[in-house]
Amino acid sequence: MSVRGKQLVSARTAAMQGYVPGEQPSDARLIKLNTNENPYACSPLVAEAIEAEARRLHLYPSPCADALRAKAAQIYDVREGQILVGNGSDELLSILVRACTQPGDVVAYPVPTYSLYRTLAEAAGARAVELPWQDDAIPPGLADVDARVIFLCSPNSPTGLALPLEEIAAFARRAACVVVVDEAYADFGTTTALSILDDHPNMMVLRTFSKSFSLAGLRLGLGFAGEELVAELVKIKDSYNVSRLAIAAGVAALEDHAWMRSNVARVRATRARVTARLRSAGFDVRDSSANFLWVDCQDHGGGKAVYDRLRQAGVLVRYFDQEGLRGGVRITIGTDDQMDRALAVLGAA
Amino acid sequence: MSVRGKQLVSARTAAMQGYVPGEQPSDARLIKLNTNENPYACSPLVAEAIEAEARRLHLYPSPCADALRAKAAQIYDVREGQILVGNGSDELLSILVRACTQPGDVVAYPVPTYSLYRTLAEAAGARAVELPWQDDAIPPGLADVDARVIFLCSPNSPTGLALPLEEIAAFARRAACVVVVDEAYADFGTTTALSILDDHPNMMVLRTFSKSFSLAGLRLGLGFAGEELVAELVKIKDSYNVSRLAIAAGVAALEDHAWMRSNVARVRATRARVTARLRSAGFDVRDSSANFLWVDCQDHGGGKAVYDRLRQAGVLVRYFDQEGLRGGVRITIGTDDQMDRALAVLGAA
Repeated sequence: MSVRGKQLVSARTAAMQGYVPGEQPSDARLIKLNTNENPYACSPLVAEAIEAEARRLHLYPSPCADALRAKAAQIYDVREGQILVGNGSDELLSILVRACTQPGDVVAYPVPTYSLYRTLAEAAGARAVELPWQDDAIPPGLADVDARVIFLCSPNSPTGLALPLEEIAAFARRAACVVVVDEAYADFGTTTALSILDDHPNMMVLRTFSKSFSLAGLRLGLGFAGEELVAELVKIKDSYNVSRLAIAAGVAALEDHAWMRSNVARVRATRARVTARLRSAGFDVRDSSANFLWVDCQDHGGGKAVYDRLRQAGVLVRYFDQEGLRGGVRITIGTDDQMDRALAVLGAA
Repeated sequence: MSVRGKQLVSARTAAMQGYVPGEQPSDARLIKLNTNENPYACSPLVAEAIEAEARRLHLYPSPCADALRAKAAQIYDVREGQILVGNGSDELLSILVRACTQPGDVVAYPVPTYSLYRTLAEAAGARAVELPWQDDAIPPGLADVDARVIFLCSPNSPTGLALPLEEIAAFARRAACVVVVDEAYADFGTTTALSILDDHPNMMVLRTFSKSFSLAGLRLGLGFAGEELVAELVKIKDSYNVSRLAIAAGVAALEDHAWMRSNVARVRATRARVTARLRSAGFDVRDSSANFLWVDCQDHGGGKAVYDRLRQAGVLVRYFDQEGLRGGVRITIGTDDQMDRALAVLGAA
């Protein structure tokens, strides 16, 4: 008997490509500037909290991560019932698509952006409507798309562009569906839609501990929305979706908010320096509100050539083999030493 | 503007009840025998591994948990490509339903069993076909149901019954769809369908670290199947679904397999003693291959009355307010001291 895997899954799954995550190389000598990780370690309070919680692992965690919801409610000035805790904000994105769409429904977003949105739509059998950014603004037609979920990544990846708050607010008022403001990189910028959450019951704001809190390996994200929407999304999440270790670590990370702010300040200082150097060397570099830079390489052989040159010198950045993105590379902001190495390769030292 | 949560999600999600997990009380004085946790701590190697890995959390984990796949391949004598690692085996169950069904497709299983199967079917818009066990055997009609996924929980919850291997094998040969053998409790029994995995390319066997490995709070599960099926399921999982801490802890737990076996032996000895005591006191108790007992309480006022009596005495067990289950309670095997307390309340000391 031979049953091929593709016959066992649905036709939809069989036809999918699947998301290709950024390379996670095992060679520790590579300078890793490809998946927007924070080069600095997380707060020592986090490691302490993890160590203490490692003794209680025989018991299930709190299904909705109540201790973390309580702490996050304080820090972000919202009510606990407005918070959904996820196994990374990727899980929250997946829950949103699964909870809000049925096959054939539409998920929409401006492009280029985080390519996982399309994978999640495909997995759910939803149709992805992708409209190009218009002069860095939300495409005018987006609010008129008959969508169930609209994603706005702000600051956006891979461009680093943050949308003005008034633009997000006006958009959320016009849209008839859930508007997800994916703020994975917001701590590196200056605005957050959390401040307008209560005025927009169809808005969900997502945060992650992966970037500013230096906890990509932990898998922890927070979603903020109206209590009624959160209650619906809870039905779709796994019963115990966040581990005891992640809950304890998240509480500790929020308790040491100053540690995160200090690392963010270092990343921002490096970002400013690297931006200036690259511009001096003739690269077209966008102002970034995130912990990475979008570097136009069209006058330097194109994105793939620059990626290859850096890779050969032991520096890993992100090249996207996608329409509209082949002209550049995305470079994560690492330590000053790491960035100096990249700048040297690019003739911008 | 007021947008109710139920209007923002799909009609399907709005109509769902959601899964109700077993109570996770904050009162640490309660003797917790309600969610089949292991009363003994995990291996000290696990805590050490977690502590070491807590220093590398700024980097993303391996997307498919390669180190854990390699270790599990050794221990369970399969190939790495046959293993899918999940954020608990609950996530693996969810991935299976999402990958294999489209709305209207059928998911089938014998009942009573793990009630999450029905929740997962509802969330995916699939139809749950539930056939009652027939004299402890797989219901004859089950293989003829035109299903996309069939779940066999063995040892089953809440009955503790393990299916004979030949029965599973014969069933998998007849069924035309994915047959999931949910072996969350297999380490407490004597058989495993892992031994017949290669003969049945439509079979997936699930294991969890929650029970025998004392790691319910960690969220880690393993799925074993043919490489082609695993490759399809990978498309549906979140890109980084398992944390660095869980990967490191899982490797350490497998390296100290003897620790788990020793805890399992203790649980089994207690299980035999408690079964005998309850029977002497007039309770009808099933032979169990798991770390819990199904105790018929119909001659003792019914399941709810016994649950209440134990609860008043500070012992929490599981009562299911469901057709066919109201006559009994499920009691997790705790330490000998904990069980003596429960036995005393039940007049079986």
